[in-house]
Amino acid sequence: MTRFEITILGCGSAMPTTLHNPTSQLVNLNEKLFMIDCGEGTQLQLRRYKARLNKLHSIFISHLHGDHLFGLPGLLATLALLGRTGDLHIYAHKEVELFLNPFLKYFGNQFPYKIIVIHLDPLHHQLIFENNAIRVFSFPLKHRIPTNGFRFEEKERPRHIKREMIDFYNIPLSKINEIKMGADFETSDGKLVENEILTTPPAPPRSYAYCSDTAYYPEMVPYIKGADLLYHEATYAETEHVRAKDTFHSTTRQAAEIARMANVKRLLIGHFSSRYNELDKLLNEACAVFPDTELADEGMKIVL
Amino acid sequence: MTRFEITILGCGSAMPTTLHNPTSQLVNLNEKLFMIDCGEGTQLQLRRYKARLNKLHSIFISHLHGDHLFGLPGLLATLALLGRTGDLHIYAHKEVELFLNPFLKYFGNQFPYKIIVIHLDPLHHQLIFENNAIRVFSFPLKHRIPTNGFRFEEKERPRHIKREMIDFYNIPLSKINEIKMGADFETSDGKLVENEILTTPPAPPRSYAYCSDTAYYPEMVPYIKGADLLYHEATYAETEHVRAKDTFHSTTRQAAEIARMANVKRLLIGHFSSRYNELDKLLNEACAVFPDTELADEGMKIVL
Repeated sequence: MTRFEITILGCGSAMPTTLHNPTSQLVNLNEKLFMIDCGEGTQLQLRRYKARLNKLHSIFISHLHGDHLFGLPGLLATLALLGRTGDLHIYAHKEVELFLNPFLKYFGNQFPYKIIVIHLDPLHHQLIFENNAIRVFSFPLKHRIPTNGFRFEEKERPRHIKREMIDFYNIPLSKINEIKMGADFETSDGKLVENEILTTPPAPPRSYAYCSDTAYYPEMVPYIKGADLLYHEATYAETEHVRAKDTFHSTTRQAAEIARMANVKRLLIGHFSSRYNELDKLLNEACAVFPDTELADEGMKIVL
Repeated sequence: MTRFEITILGCGSAMPTTLHNPTSQLVNLNEKLFMIDCGEGTQLQLRRYKARLNKLHSIFISHLHGDHLFGLPGLLATLALLGRTGDLHIYAHKEVELFLNPFLKYFGNQFPYKIIVIHLDPLHHQLIFENNAIRVFSFPLKHRIPTNGFRFEEKERPRHIKREMIDFYNIPLSKINEIKMGADFETSDGKLVENEILTTPPAPPRSYAYCSDTAYYPEMVPYIKGADLLYHEATYAETEHVRAKDTFHSTTRQAAEIARMANVKRLLIGHFSSRYNELDKLLNEACAVFPDTELADEGMKIVL
């Protein structure tokens, strides 16, 4: 099966700690790497966890707070040192250009590759990327500044053709692909064999939803519905729910409520406030509402 | 004695590795912290080695290559989160403003403290900072872009007054300071006691010289002469001397030659190329020319 794997590079929040790096993640879909957010030190995390930088396809920046993007300059410069030539697409809110362009003008004039910035729409659900294997959607979250969540959704895959049916009906190679796509097969003596006899259905398409940073925001539920994995920030424990509200962050229970409403398969919480050295309490609070919850951690890989 | 201590926060070079952080150092003089360079991840290193961020006095950027300054955005933002109010002076080449100002315009408009950029002169030896304890000089190095070295030089300290002489001559408190500064003392019956009888000389002023990045450049010798400690880059082993020359970096022997010519007390080499996993060879090469050489390492503290 095609690889669909999430690697957590950092799951801390704004104040740096020696326990957690600022936010960054990698989505590996069939050996293409999509990066979500790029906090300071991300390029070092990529090295630590042996990510193949030459497979980096594009970068998605959820919002323009430093702990989600201060790793960009170093990463972009290192890609240049490594001799990257392929275009790099960066999806971000348009204001990123106010400081990214002056940076690129000074440091990037000899980069051997091109950076293409694609503006995120902070107000609407939007298809922002599509290839033959995946669609990436962006949707609004609720934070102090424009912030978007992302959903990586595998496309419906071809049906599996049964080996023994190929032999039995003597199906020529030229017909295999269309049968995988759902076509029936006509034998040489004119008999129609229905697709369902020849194939088994593909595994259902997998999807990953990323929501950080955000206050409690049930309006996002339609966009993350049924995801195999939801990463939702849980910056604070329930005791800090007032502070969570004031800073437009979520508590553990709120993250779990969203997971429950969206009927996702698993919930991963992260973006932990630097005040927590132990995270058991956060996990327990979330699990009380949504049992299939895990704590994010640096270096964690989740295979969907 | 007043504390004069160097902490190595990073001694790697442009390509990040899991062995070394990019360049940054702290000079602690009497609990004021002067930072030299600020590569990506510096704020994390500060935390790792328990530096007191509220004691950060100013930042000196040797040159505008990313591995010497991509940690600035994160550090400046964190200082704001921590509620710093005192001005922060950043010494750097004027071109820093091309990308620092757009950054500050976007991220810094609510910083509770002011950032004051002071332009380095890339061509001349210059006194750039002075207080009652220290002078900081900047001087040209030889690199691909304008690059400066720095010398932190303690001021001549007061002489030590001998306890027993205070008692013997009944010296009033009001006279102590001027005697420490070298004055003689006249007793109540008019007898002149020479300062040398009353005091012992202070320890000689200490100094620290920092030279990175640079090609072999004997012209710097007058500016680093006799330093108690010289940090000099040694990006490459002797086998790579052609590459060193092409990239305007130094080899081990070249760093050691400079130390020998400048008659410094100790040499610390750093800015190691990512190609070296083991550094013994680099140390041996430098020691062959200048025996009092040490390898820099993250977390290393050197007390002068």
